Amino acid sequence: MEKSSILVVGSLAFDDLEMPFGTFENVLGGAATYSAVAASLLGAPTRLVGVIGEDFEEATLTDLQKRGVDTAGVERAKGKTFRWRGRYSQDLASRTTLDTQLNVFADFRPKIPASFKSSPYVLLGNIHPALQLEVLAQIDKPWLVVADTMNFWISGEPKLVADVLAKIDLLVINDEEARELSGVHNLVKAAAEIRKRGPSKLIIKRGEHGALYFDDEGVFFAPAYPLEEVVDPTGAGDSFAGGLIGYLSRAGTVSHATMRQAMYFGSAMGSFCVEGIGPRRLLETTRDDVSARIKDFADLVETGPLTLPE
Amino acid sequence: MEKSSILVVGSLAFDDLEMPFGTFENVLGGAATYSAVAASLLGAPTRLVGVIGEDFEEATLTDLQKRGVDTAGVERAKGKTFRWRGRYSQDLASRTTLDTQLNVFADFRPKIPASFKSSPYVLLGNIHPALQLEVLAQIDKPWLVVADTMNFWISGEPKLVADVLAKIDLLVINDEEARELSGVHNLVKAAAEIRKRGPSKLIIKRGEHGALYFDDEGVFFAPAYPLEEVVDPTGAGDSFAGGLIGYLSRAGTVSHATMRQAMYFGSAMGSFCVEGIGPRRLLETTRDDVSARIKDFADLVETGPLTLPE
Repeated sequence: MEKSSILVVGSLAFDDLEMPFGTFENVLGGAATYSAVAASLLGAPTRLVGVIGEDFEEATLTDLQKRGVDTAGVERAKGKTFRWRGRYSQDLASRTTLDTQLNVFADFRPKIPASFKSSPYVLLGNIHPALQLEVLAQIDKPWLVVADTMNFWISGEPKLVADVLAKIDLLVINDEEARELSGVHNLVKAAAEIRKRGPSKLIIKRGEHGALYFDDEGVFFAPAYPLEEVVDPTGAGDSFAGGLIGYLSRAGTVSHATMRQAMYFGSAMGSFCVEGIGPRRLLETTRDDVSARIKDFADLVETGPLTLPE
Repeated sequence: MEKSSILVVGSLAFDDLEMPFGTFENVLGGAATYSAVAASLLGAPTRLVGVIGEDFEEATLTDLQKRGVDTAGVERAKGKTFRWRGRYSQDLASRTTLDTQLNVFADFRPKIPASFKSSPYVLLGNIHPALQLEVLAQIDKPWLVVADTMNFWISGEPKLVADVLAKIDLLVINDEEARELSGVHNLVKAAAEIRKRGPSKLIIKRGEHGALYFDDEGVFFAPAYPLEEVVDPTGAGDSFAGGLIGYLSRAGTVSHATMRQAMYFGSAMGSFCVEGIGPRRLLETTRDDVSARIKDFADLVETGPLTLPE
């Protein structure tokens, strides 16, 4: 097994984004795209599995390859690429789906190339749980299987979601999903309930309010980076997951301590992502930008000794 | 000037709390009560100024005194104590005021006892800004003047609020207040705008999502303590402010570094507060409980080195 490769399975897409300050069409999107860009930005060898249509430019694939993303698992099918159109609220806190055109994604059955099967790190994007199970059936036993987001499958496919939960190591979901999945409002209790169902590790994302991590060794909190300007939240969660698994791959070990650090790298990737339309800012981010933001981040929470004077 | 005394001016009250799991009447309440209990719990000499009616038991004042709260500034007036009745939503995330009986609070004009006038730390609770200005006119120049919450005065008394802002060092408000006061949605920008109007230091509280601190030296974030069970959020913000100023008083200095630490002590006091109906749990908290929670808190955010492996 190679030491550090990450297998990312999920959507590649074009997004039409109706933002309060203007509409942006044909923006490169898809959960797997954001995650792969974020992971590769941290220097993690990343393998991408997904499907694109005839309208997806070869140059975009080439750019991903230059970033260290192996696109051998990106299948080109007849028809158009998956397309999502959404409108964001004035404060960017919520969004409405205006149109979803599955296109080639409708018949997507992930095929994992032989050279990808022994990837030690696996990130399953928000695809149908039946497809997630198909991915897991095709690969060798990895060190860490992460599933990111499952919103509409929770009520739509509870049985399959349960099957997926039993087979993954780390689930990354937001607070609404955690409440829906567990049936419990309090997030600390919800976390305990969800972890009983399979994943020993759980991250509950709270958007601009940061994220909580739970495992057998305890609970950890990482804030979101406080930005002056949020331009577009699309892909922030996917970038978080990519940054997280990217750091773990670079660290070469998955411990409670490295998970804590990985949360900050995930948050940093999410913070770059939301600074531009689509993945624009993330694609421009350099390794030096990452180091600087991580330093700012560490400074944001640094307290010195916390003891009451005698 | 004595080195460390805190002057707390605000409401003492009885609350009737309609919680999802039952109704609790005649619960000791009032912002100044919560703040004074929290500050004194950290060993800070605390001086309380407020008004109570004939129905307020002497034993409650005696208990406060035993905790190190000087109640010489608590005036007993003819009539009944201020009373608030509220109903919390099922998830405790919001509340509705059902009844407000100002009673003796209607004619409250804070009179600062001569022995209180040189207190170096001053906490102005959420009283009418005209009364806050009267307090400031009666006292010597303190080291730190904190104003906590101003919700309905922001739109109701904008001119007086502006006068108060110009005279205080630290404003503690929640995110909604920050947005209303500044007219800016983004909290980082809102903070810059508010700080231009007077307070060099600003804390923006976000309830269970923690709090942000802004001053000339930068920004700091402290999370809320993730609790399994929130019983009653009443007084959490007041306890936060009391814990914060209590720590500063004990530290004996107000620097960027001590403000960071003070945020954690404030959050810890808020976390105890919400664990019981009214101030019940806060009143039972020991100094050892505080140390243990602060330790848990430090552990919650501890990351070790944040650098990408070479």
